[in-house]
Amino acid sequence: MYLVAGKAEGKTPLNAFDNALLAAGIGDVNLIKVSSIVPPGAEVRMERPNLPRGALVPCVYAERTSEVPGERIAVALAVGLADDGFGVVMESEGETEEEAAQKAIQMVEEAFRVRGLNLQQVLRIAVEHQVVACGGVVAACVYWR
Amino acid sequence: MYLVAGKAEGKTPLNAFDNALLAAGIGDVNLIKVSSIVPPGAEVRMERPNLPRGALVPCVYAERTSEVPGERIAVALAVGLADDGFGVVMESEGETEEEAAQKAIQMVEEAFRVRGLNLQQVLRIAVEHQVVACGGVVAACVYWR
Amino acid sequence: MYLVAGKAEGKTPLNAFDNALLAAGIGDVNLIKVSSIVPPGAEVRMERPNLPRGALVPCVYAERTSEVPGERIAVALAVGLADDGFGVVMESEGETEEEAAQKAIQMVEEAFRVRGLNLQQVLRIAVEHQVVACGGVVAACVYWR
Repeated sequence: MYLVAGKAEGKTPLNAFDNALLAAGIGDVNLIKVSSIVPPGAEVRMERPNLPRGALVPCVYAERTSEVPGERIAVALAVGLADDGFGVVMESEGETEEEAAQKAIQMVEEAFRVRGLNLQQVLRIAVEHQVVACGGVVAACVYWR
Repeated sequence: MYLVAGKAEGKTPLNAFDNALLAAGIGDVNLIKVSSIVPPGAEVRMERPNLPRGALVPCVYAERTSEVPGERIAVALAVGLADDGFGVVMESEGETEEEAAQKAIQMVEEAFRVRGLNLQQVLRIAVEHQVVACGGVVAACVYWR
Repeated sequence: MYLVAGKAEGKTPLNAFDNALLAAGIGDVNLIKVSSIVPPGAEVRMERPNLPRGALVPCVYAERTSEVPGERIAVALAVGLADDGFGVVMESEGETEEEAAQKAIQMVEEAFRVRGLNLQQVLRIAVEHQVVACGGVVAACVYWR
């Protein structure tokens, strides 16, 4: 699994989202949105995956776009991992990277508490952007082998 | 196919949804949301599936969360089956299980009428919850063999 | 890949959407929503695919429903293709087919510009409907071999 993030401006909100995906290195594949579980034994990397163009790629992502100049937009993912590599991904948004990341980490902590699992490690990725005219941010956890 | 439902409180709406999925027995897999057709020959069971943790599971689901204490939230799915096992799933929401289920059943009836199919059987699943602080409900139809 | 569109009335918004999918020839399959990339070498056809009932079908779609009698609703997809068959799909909505299609085409043009790709061909599909009581429109790009 790969954790990536990107931010960009665009002519429309959909283009800003597309451009943020390109900035994150996942703009030329087909993302299939899935819910938020990491299979046991998965390896999590903080790098860009090398994906064939057009591939169908399962993915958890948080995205936000805005056409309000000056607005601060941020999204984050936190990935909690148990001892056997099973994990839970939580997504959140906010005005700053730090705010969004803290929310996501707290959600991961509750998800582990209710499952009775030991939270062996927490990874996070976050991105923030101050909108010029039309901006977008995306943080994603991509499942690829 | 498996029809399941769950309800729960959580610290945030996303945690309440996660906890409701756990209560429904589908909290530790990756749900891929699909539209609402049951393949001919599928078997529908009102029980919890035995799913490997982290599996990618196609699923129709209805979910609702609320942070309004005292609010009643309900969701339902109805599954209509034709003579050959082909089916249509409709999702709905409301304040009570019964209200949500009736809406879903009426939508299934129209879906069969427009297709000119005989509605051989209707199954339903529904769940309601009165919110304490932050609650969630989910009803799902899970595709698994 | 197949570009299709449909419009319909229904008793509820979900039924209107279901009926619009039937009108487009994709009402009896399970659509999995994906993001918007056409794999290199794909062939794009402006015809209805012949899909097995209940199949899991990756799909980009734009849909809109309305319960406001007299309202005009339209959606469109534009598909831009590069020299090697790689493509980008953009979806949009509006009041008329032409308005929605123009928006989608402009988004495709920006998507090619930021990628530094030559826009060899643009295909479009659009549909509009004036709501009687409860109407829906859908335009879809279906991935099927």
